[in-house]
Amino acid sequence: MPDDARPDDELVARGREIQARLWPQVAGSSGTTSPVARVAPDFHRYVASSAFGTLWNRPGLALRDRSLVTVAQLAALGRPDELRAHLRGARNVGISEDELIEVLMQTAVYAGVPAANEALRVAAEVFGTA
Amino acid sequence: MPDDARPDDELVARGREIQARLWPQVAGSSGTTSPVARVAPDFHRYVASSAFGTLWNRPGLALRDRSLVTVAQLAALGRPDELRAHLRGARNVGISEDELIEVLMQTAVYAGVPAANEALRVAAEVFGTA
Amino acid sequence: MPDDARPDDELVARGREIQARLWPQVAGSSGTTSPVARVAPDFHRYVASSAFGTLWNRPGLALRDRSLVTVAQLAALGRPDELRAHLRGARNVGISEDELIEVLMQTAVYAGVPAANEALRVAAEVFGTA
Amino acid sequence: MPDDARPDDELVARGREIQARLWPQVAGSSGTTSPVARVAPDFHRYVASSAFGTLWNRPGLALRDRSLVTVAQLAALGRPDELRAHLRGARNVGISEDELIEVLMQTAVYAGVPAANEALRVAAEVFGTA
Amino acid sequence: MPDDARPDDELVARGREIQARLWPQVAGSSGTTSPVARVAPDFHRYVASSAFGTLWNRPGLALRDRSLVTVAQLAALGRPDELRAHLRGARNVGISEDELIEVLMQTAVYAGVPAANEALRVAAEVFGTA
Amino acid sequence: MPDDARPDDELVARGREIQARLWPQVAGSSGTTSPVARVAPDFHRYVASSAFGTLWNRPGLALRDRSLVTVAQLAALGRPDELRAHLRGARNVGISEDELIEVLMQTAVYAGVPAANEALRVAAEVFGTA
Repeated sequence: MPDDARPDDELVARGREIQARLWPQVAGSSGTTSPVARVAPDFHRYVASSAFGTLWNRPGLALRDRSLVTVAQLAALGRPDELRAHLRGARNVGISEDELIEVLMQTAVYAGVPAANEALRVAAEVFGTA
Repeated sequence: MPDDARPDDELVARGREIQARLWPQVAGSSGTTSPVARVAPDFHRYVASSAFGTLWNRPGLALRDRSLVTVAQLAALGRPDELRAHLRGARNVGISEDELIEVLMQTAVYAGVPAANEALRVAAEVFGTA
Repeated sequence: MPDDARPDDELVARGREIQARLWPQVAGSSGTTSPVARVAPDFHRYVASSAFGTLWNRPGLALRDRSLVTVAQLAALGRPDELRAHLRGARNVGISEDELIEVLMQTAVYAGVPAANEALRVAAEVFGTA
Repeated sequence: MPDDARPDDELVARGREIQARLWPQVAGSSGTTSPVARVAPDFHRYVASSAFGTLWNRPGLALRDRSLVTVAQLAALGRPDELRAHLRGARNVGISEDELIEVLMQTAVYAGVPAANEALRVAAEVFGTA
Repeated sequence: MPDDARPDDELVARGREIQARLWPQVAGSSGTTSPVARVAPDFHRYVASSAFGTLWNRPGLALRDRSLVTVAQLAALGRPDELRAHLRGARNVGISEDELIEVLMQTAVYAGVPAANEALRVAAEVFGTA
Repeated sequence: MPDDARPDDELVARGREIQARLWPQVAGSSGTTSPVARVAPDFHRYVASSAFGTLWNRPGLALRDRSLVTVAQLAALGRPDELRAHLRGARNVGISEDELIEVLMQTAVYAGVPAANEALRVAAEVFGTA
């Protein structure tokens, strides 16, 4: 990436602050050792800047609500890896496990029973009852 | 449908109460004149009972939050007709238009920019600025 | 397409026989005047050969069952244009409107209520009650 | 769930009868020990009532046909876990392995070759040839 | 959006240069009069910065190839509105109509015949033969 | 499959030539020992004929471009098994790993960040850095 096309440092920093609120246990980790970071070293920086630094950082919706709707979308779309991470993040910003289970059960109505089932299996794993 | 396989009357009634909170302007409408009701006369009753009477009716998650995550899922899945209805419902249970726009913009991260664009076009229509 | 890479004439002919059983009213139509045929003149021939001439033509599953599962898949995947055509085709090979409505209602379980709703709206249109 | 919002006992019982025809080997199992049952103890009951007790229980479509279209939808939507279970169920209600393979091959036309491939891999596992 | 969270001006400008190569006829248009711009005034700016200014602007893949793969993805995902715009863009960066038709026909293999059909209908419209 | 409904031998042979260019290391393998080949012995032959022999074999688009758009579609649709194979194929027909990474990063715009993440994880595995 040419220097002048890099995501803005300020937005990356703001994105990382939000990521640290969702996942305090991994804050400080540079992320450069993941397989994705090795093949696409700019990708995490792009996500920090565009997703977290720009959109999640906007004032019009509470962080708690952004987390809740993200869990809902990942369950509906069938993205178990990101769902696992965002269920942990949701708990870290104050959403209860019971509330999250309700979101996943209701997914059956909009995305079908198999999508809800898969999401609930991920939740069972994250919530220590698997 | 044999009588003993019909959705339980009590659950249908509870579902209709929730539907009336989301869409007070259509409460009292029997729904029997829609095209879907004509070919599948039991379908609306099924939805009232199973979706609204059973899941939305559960106490573990606020109605406002159920509405918010439903909007998020319909935007992610690309369901413009239901999204239109649920954007109206969300406003009726106290979610601001600004909050809803934030949910739809953030959809770009999880379901892609085209999904967010389509959802924002529906919102523009519902919010009277189209 | 070079002559020696064209779909086999025999398979195209067999595919067209099956298409004529599903849609007798359009049999004989060359299909060359549709917008798709104008930009992609080989595409209908490809579909006749590979979809209908090769797979639908196989003996291991009844034509009626092939039609039924196609309707189910188009409803689940949200393909209203093809669903419209295949609902007509299904009726032409002896599946009743009531059976088709049951398939579409049950779609709510596996693909969600919005997918079922959209499919039932298409059915209402095709079955003359819209 | 408040007592008066629970799925109707009669519908749950009817749903379990249908589940027992699809999966006689697991009938009698309470299901309460699965990871999903531990985090969402009401979810299996909800599915028994709304999916099996209400929709699958309706008289307008043969059980064999409901099973066949479910397999087709799960293959098209890419739900390997539920597909595995419903391939077994389909065999238990009298659909032959050859018929099921035809359904999965034909999925290539409507959902693409990768969806058909994944579904056939699941079938290979279930049919003891993997 | 607080001033310090706005997408970087430099990235927005670079994104708009790329958009102007794809759609020279609309370059100079502020975009502020579209329905989406009215409900979500920051969204176009976000897309210019993150999608075009950051990713499309990277040197590792030719603009022509970025355009080609975008058309392919929009066809596979069933996004007719964006597909319409990107088919025009693809032609403007030197991809022939014949090449684009081949991409859309091949979509039948990976996303199914209905996805290819819908994409070819959009192409017929854009290429003036509809 | 009755003899006269089998895919044309000439198209199967042409398809296998293209498959051998994408995957020279497996050329000559009959494919008959895979689980899919055991339950659906005609399926690989169908794919060779219809996908590779008929569509990929057409002259209007370079083999390199067909490979590139296939990678893009598999990433967008979330098909990790086929993506793994086609990333190898793409490298074999002269597309660089850097170009492929750019395609996968850009997928974040059209199919969302989770789809891009999953595709990049597959690439990390294929490109020997996982």
